[in-house]
Amino acid sequence: MTVSPLAPAKFPTMPKIDGLRLSAIAGGLRYKGRPDLFLAELAPGTSAAGVFTRSKTASAPVLRGRQSLKRGTGRAVVVNAGNANAFTGSSGMTAVEETAAATAKTLGIAKADVYLASTGVIGEALDGKKIAGLLGKLAKGLKPGNWHQAARAICTTDTFPKGASVVTEIAGKPVTIAGIAKGSGMIEPDMATMLSFIFTDAKIPANVLQSLLRGANDKSFNAITVDSDTSTSDTCLLFATGKARHGKITSAGDARLKAFKAALLSVMQDLAHQIVRDGEGATKFVSVTITGAETKSAARTIARSVANSPLVKTAIAGEDPNWGRVVMAVGKAGEKADRDAISIRFGDHAIANDGKVIPNYDETPVAAYMKGDEIDITVDVGVGRGKATVWTCDLTHGYITINADYRS
Amino acid sequence: MTVSPLAPAKFPTMPKIDGLRLSAIAGGLRYKGRPDLFLAELAPGTSAAGVFTRSKTASAPVLRGRQSLKRGTGRAVVVNAGNANAFTGSSGMTAVEETAAATAKTLGIAKADVYLASTGVIGEALDGKKIAGLLGKLAKGLKPGNWHQAARAICTTDTFPKGASVVTEIAGKPVTIAGIAKGSGMIEPDMATMLSFIFTDAKIPANVLQSLLRGANDKSFNAITVDSDTSTSDTCLLFATGKARHGKITSAGDARLKAFKAALLSVMQDLAHQIVRDGEGATKFVSVTITGAETKSAARTIARSVANSPLVKTAIAGEDPNWGRVVMAVGKAGEKADRDAISIRFGDHAIANDGKVIPNYDETPVAAYMKGDEIDITVDVGVGRGKATVWTCDLTHGYITINADYRS
Repeated sequence: MTVSPLAPAKFPTMPKIDGLRLSAIAGGLRYKGRPDLFLAELAPGTSAAGVFTRSKTASAPVLRGRQSLKRGTGRAVVVNAGNANAFTGSSGMTAVEETAAATAKTLGIAKADVYLASTGVIGEALDGKKIAGLLGKLAKGLKPGNWHQAARAICTTDTFPKGASVVTEIAGKPVTIAGIAKGSGMIEPDMATMLSFIFTDAKIPANVLQSLLRGANDKSFNAITVDSDTSTSDTCLLFATGKARHGKITSAGDARLKAFKAALLSVMQDLAHQIVRDGEGATKFVSVTITGAETKSAARTIARSVANSPLVKTAIAGEDPNWGRVVMAVGKAGEKADRDAISIRFGDHAIANDGKVIPNYDETPVAAYMKGDEIDITVDVGVGRGKATVWTCDLTHGYITINADYRS
Repeated sequence: MTVSPLAPAKFPTMPKIDGLRLSAIAGGLRYKGRPDLFLAELAPGTSAAGVFTRSKTASAPVLRGRQSLKRGTGRAVVVNAGNANAFTGSSGMTAVEETAAATAKTLGIAKADVYLASTGVIGEALDGKKIAGLLGKLAKGLKPGNWHQAARAICTTDTFPKGASVVTEIAGKPVTIAGIAKGSGMIEPDMATMLSFIFTDAKIPANVLQSLLRGANDKSFNAITVDSDTSTSDTCLLFATGKARHGKITSAGDARLKAFKAALLSVMQDLAHQIVRDGEGATKFVSVTITGAETKSAARTIARSVANSPLVKTAIAGEDPNWGRVVMAVGKAGEKADRDAISIRFGDHAIANDGKVIPNYDETPVAAYMKGDEIDITVDVGVGRGKATVWTCDLTHGYITINADYRS
């Protein structure tokens, strides 16, 4: 498999998190010769937060995860790659229960504190007993760090493993945040991304953690799209082991969380951008910013309309500054826009103002700009102060090649 | 240009309509050596109906058409191909006024009875004076019939001209309906298709005609999608010359209109299906039928979600019966669905029942079915009686090739 041309040069060096151990093995569940089974073990007292797909055909592990989160605690995460355990009826629920029970027994923890995620083909039965049988071996491999193997184990069509971390502070005490993610196609997360697991040693209660996760998620995983296809399995979990030495936090509005919030957002945006950079067939990383919309939500809707338009995405693939297609995509979004006040920029190049192309528009420098691998499109729709950015990639022959024969 | 593999064997033989003359010439507006300017002249007393794109960045001719329709009368239609006259600011309105004025003068009719449509590149100024200068020549070519040339003149990336007709009756008197259409990419009509012009000799007042058009449009042009990109220029106009010899019609509910309604729908569905068959890069004609939805509108939303999913469309291109992606697309639609009651059929092949794959599912005959060029996907979502069908095509390398370098 060819690595995406937009991939980072290498997997980042990532810190250990106090209270967290990771393991990954090649379980032979679907893939040969690569890790496809992941286990995270968390210290007692770890609080948990999560967001999941809004799909009406959500997978069995997603349904279970929603239930588990009600406790607000977490001691383990088990993830398999290659089979999504979605649209598998009651056998899907049996498989998650078997996996959770074996994990609880192996680690000596409560079954309700085990979180599961599955990613891969939809509609095939998952063999829970086989996973259960591998848990002993998986648990033996647990160690601090181990991020690269863990990130590889959750990949499907990904061409590179995705990780990001940051060291920040709460109340002057050092706090670490580190996470991994996977995703390449079937990406327009509606609550979270395909899969992402983020860990911190901060000491933050579950209800506050959930609020922080939702806030950062809205500006990271919920602001990306590869192909407009929302997965059955989108899951983003955030665990806080509580090993850091800062004082007690009881509210998401606590001023001491300012640096932590920014740090969490930066890790999640980094991971979300890596998913876009690994978008199936992607050759360009595209930022679409809408300003001047009626509301923030309207700006997001218009930005998504542009970012999901096959005609805009193919034009970018062809390095064609075809801003007429951007106009089309703004128009079809259904949100208020003042046709005669719209302005459009590609990078720093002004193209249109007041609803028409600028006088003596010279396409030469814009065409040169389109040859780069990062493209910024900014549109002001001229009706208000709403603003939003959505990140996406181009639509290329590579996407067709990958998806016309992925399963077969 | 290669003709779509889904194209009809030849352009149909189409009847003359009493009270209608057509002309098409190669105006050299954008294309060389092919007709790109179309004129229809209608008899005095012709009533007019129309539906247009809901795009917030609608083209100048669409804005003008909405105004003209208020009179309910029509005497001429002028269409140019190659330039959409959209996002052209005040110069766009000047161009439509120049064209309408020249048409009115040449034919000796009221300017307000002239309807215009433009299709092609967005954002380039249209030279209204050039079109005005060609109107004498265009008018000289007017004759009854002439459908093939007319249908060719409105094409852009179309690989074949599109026409359909039928002879029906009102109150026992013969009535003819005939129409042409264009469209291939940027197709998810929100009120009408890219462009379609339909003519009849029926004697039907404008308000009734409008009601009939809306009804048929909902089940034809509004039920297709090629790439989810709603155009700035979608326009569907229906003109009734009143030359037929049936009695007076004053209501859309008139029982004597039964055959006419069915005939109008058949012409419009035929044209809409031809647009899908000419979908950019299309190799398969796909019908997506949703049953068991909460409402008709919910069924439509789910059908569109399936028909617009890049992952479903690429699977079909790859002749892969990847029904898991259908499950995903049903789930992301946001409408109510009972995950554990969903059933799926590809053609006559049952694949899933009660939310999981059928026992001993054998993919062999389904894989063989996928090799055909007409694919029917039927999903029952198990919550109610809402039903809808949407027609689309597959997503192939051809779409990428066409759209990564259309404008350049």
